[in-house]
Amino acid sequence: MEEIQGGVAAALGFRASGVACGIKGNRKRDLAMVVSDKPAAACGVFTSNRMKAAPVVLSSSYIKAGRARSIVVNSGNANAATGPAGMEDAKRVSEEAAKKLGIPKRQSLVFSTGIIGKPLPVEKILSKMDSLIAALGRGGSSDAADAIMTTDTFSKEKAVGIFAGGAEIRIGAIAKGSGMIAPDMATMLCFISTDAAIERDALERALKYSVDRSFNSITVDGDCSTNDSVVILANGAARNAKIRYGTAAFREFRNALLHLCAELARMIVKDGEGATKLVEVAAEGAGSASSARKVCFAVANSLLVKTAVSGENPNWGRIVSAAGASGVPFDPARLTVSLGGRVVFADGAPVEFKKAELDDIMKSSEIRIKIDLGRGKGSWSVLTTDLSEEYVKINKEYS
Amino acid sequence: MEEIQGGVAAALGFRASGVACGIKGNRKRDLAMVVSDKPAAACGVFTSNRMKAAPVVLSSSYIKAGRARSIVVNSGNANAATGPAGMEDAKRVSEEAAKKLGIPKRQSLVFSTGIIGKPLPVEKILSKMDSLIAALGRGGSSDAADAIMTTDTFSKEKAVGIFAGGAEIRIGAIAKGSGMIAPDMATMLCFISTDAAIERDALERALKYSVDRSFNSITVDGDCSTNDSVVILANGAARNAKIRYGTAAFREFRNALLHLCAELARMIVKDGEGATKLVEVAAEGAGSASSARKVCFAVANSLLVKTAVSGENPNWGRIVSAAGASGVPFDPARLTVSLGGRVVFADGAPVEFKKAELDDIMKSSEIRIKIDLGRGKGSWSVLTTDLSEEYVKINKEYS
Repeated sequence: MEEIQGGVAAALGFRASGVACGIKGNRKRDLAMVVSDKPAAACGVFTSNRMKAAPVVLSSSYIKAGRARSIVVNSGNANAATGPAGMEDAKRVSEEAAKKLGIPKRQSLVFSTGIIGKPLPVEKILSKMDSLIAALGRGGSSDAADAIMTTDTFSKEKAVGIFAGGAEIRIGAIAKGSGMIAPDMATMLCFISTDAAIERDALERALKYSVDRSFNSITVDGDCSTNDSVVILANGAARNAKIRYGTAAFREFRNALLHLCAELARMIVKDGEGATKLVEVAAEGAGSASSARKVCFAVANSLLVKTAVSGENPNWGRIVSAAGASGVPFDPARLTVSLGGRVVFADGAPVEFKKAELDDIMKSSEIRIKIDLGRGKGSWSVLTTDLSEEYVKINKEYS
Repeated sequence: MEEIQGGVAAALGFRASGVACGIKGNRKRDLAMVVSDKPAAACGVFTSNRMKAAPVVLSSSYIKAGRARSIVVNSGNANAATGPAGMEDAKRVSEEAAKKLGIPKRQSLVFSTGIIGKPLPVEKILSKMDSLIAALGRGGSSDAADAIMTTDTFSKEKAVGIFAGGAEIRIGAIAKGSGMIAPDMATMLCFISTDAAIERDALERALKYSVDRSFNSITVDGDCSTNDSVVILANGAARNAKIRYGTAAFREFRNALLHLCAELARMIVKDGEGATKLVEVAAEGAGSASSARKVCFAVANSLLVKTAVSGENPNWGRIVSAAGASGVPFDPARLTVSLGGRVVFADGAPVEFKKAELDDIMKSSEIRIKIDLGRGKGSWSVLTTDLSEEYVKINKEYS
């Protein structure tokens, strides 16, 4: 596997574009498109929030048929909690794109991200559909990545190449995050394209596997949004022998996809609102992977832990307390915690350490918290950020 | 029922005191005592955190026998995550108090609050035991309330009088909160005394009922501490006809106790770290009370909701999204949300409103969020605060 250029348009037969349609104002790009030149196998993973945004409801129903050709995404407005009118708006955007691209309307997916509860400025989007299509190109990934940003401070794209099924295969993506990043996905969008020929069932399994270990294992503020979606299109343009579930080629493809997703997830966490530190919380020795995951999220979402990290304060007591509050059973007398590789609490009791040593660990921009529950073999790890005054400031003002 | 003076020493046969023993430094009070002149029926509700602090483990085991005479509390150090040495320290404090008061050692309860993971400065506590006992008096509640504070900005005490079982009965308490206030209790201590004669079973039921609807229905930052405890002692000095479960006198007593707990819980939330607003989140129309409670806590703990309130930003979309992410099933098309009595989202769609009207509501120091799930008859309500930069600042620095 090697990293390659071209983002979401790196795979053969894909083009992308990003333009400004005036939702964000200030001539900022806020409308993106990704198109496959021929029909592609498609699947997606969508938010578990009950208040799914209209475009998520629409696109997740379209994608069930298994094929898609195009994706239109606007930023600046989430088209969420907008009632029946919001659904009409989402359909209008989808239909207009389908008509102008000359593809079946159920293969035209739409997504939105931004403020919740305001009517989608649909005329602005429709008026720029021609420019959006005219701008499509193999070099359009950066513009598309730029156009889907909300409070992100940098755009996120990535692509990798592998050799599988007797051919070179490319997988590329654009993503956005920032704020509300939580398990089960949260104002987080990722659009992935690949020129692999792959059975849809295999594609779906590879996607679920990868999302679970990447986008569903990051958290910024524990909130879970109405719009989160990860979608993959596979158009077969690489002309490889079709990848089937359970084969060596499948594992090769899945690992490359996980790598791609994990890299993008890491970029999303790094760009968390007001984040000054990247924090990895790893749990081991749990009764099961799902118990370990619960402990990771309890610690990663604890405001007291997050503010302590922000203050470069090695207050491991808060880590121990958050693990204890996770609801996961363990024996405190067997609990061991380390910070940056330094054991601070072992078998239920504090360990002596040099303050200067821990201070150095806390000053680092990436901090690793490890919790061993001393109970079984379950393990998991989660990426998060600290919580700074800047996060509060951003979220007080955003509207 | 009427409010009376005297706090935790308002009930006949109770005395209290608070002195400085040097844990906090700066000659601040950090050691409190509450004593009943005769043995009292006792029960308590304790943190569900797996990492229970040593004094909680000790006192919750002592209290099982059903009787207690004294409570010693230190602030500044939680004696949590301190291993076997911490348990020895807790026992030493308990034994020293028992010896000096001349009471059975298992009737001598101990509690601690403050930083986690540091050895308890037990010698400082023991050296002041004589002064603590010498200072005991009917007027000592304020000093005791003062001595149990950590980052609290004001001390919390309250007492009420009722007429039940043919006699005047008093119930009084001191409490502390601030930070980490969450369901199942969190760095939250409350010590209640009453001169009621009441069967222990009835006392326990009244306490659980009251705590569930007060201290367990508030949240500041969603964290749940290692030390939370609510304890009640009932010494029978009022010489009323003994209160039994299910009687009119029981209901009278229980309602007075709930009133007392609810008032103290409200004071705790108001004093949440960096809080600028008091927020009531009420859920109605849920499938059950427990579903309603889940929705309340999902909204009350959402950082995006809390920061929006802090910014006086009527961003009801975040409320809708947080309710959707609660895991509680409901039909978005039947969801209704109001802010300060003003409906902003009805039956799944936004409602037009005058921005100025909502701005006024958000400027108020107390804000009521109501969510109707349109599904059943379950309801609950939870008190919380906004999340300000000040919260982050306090918790970055505290150690």
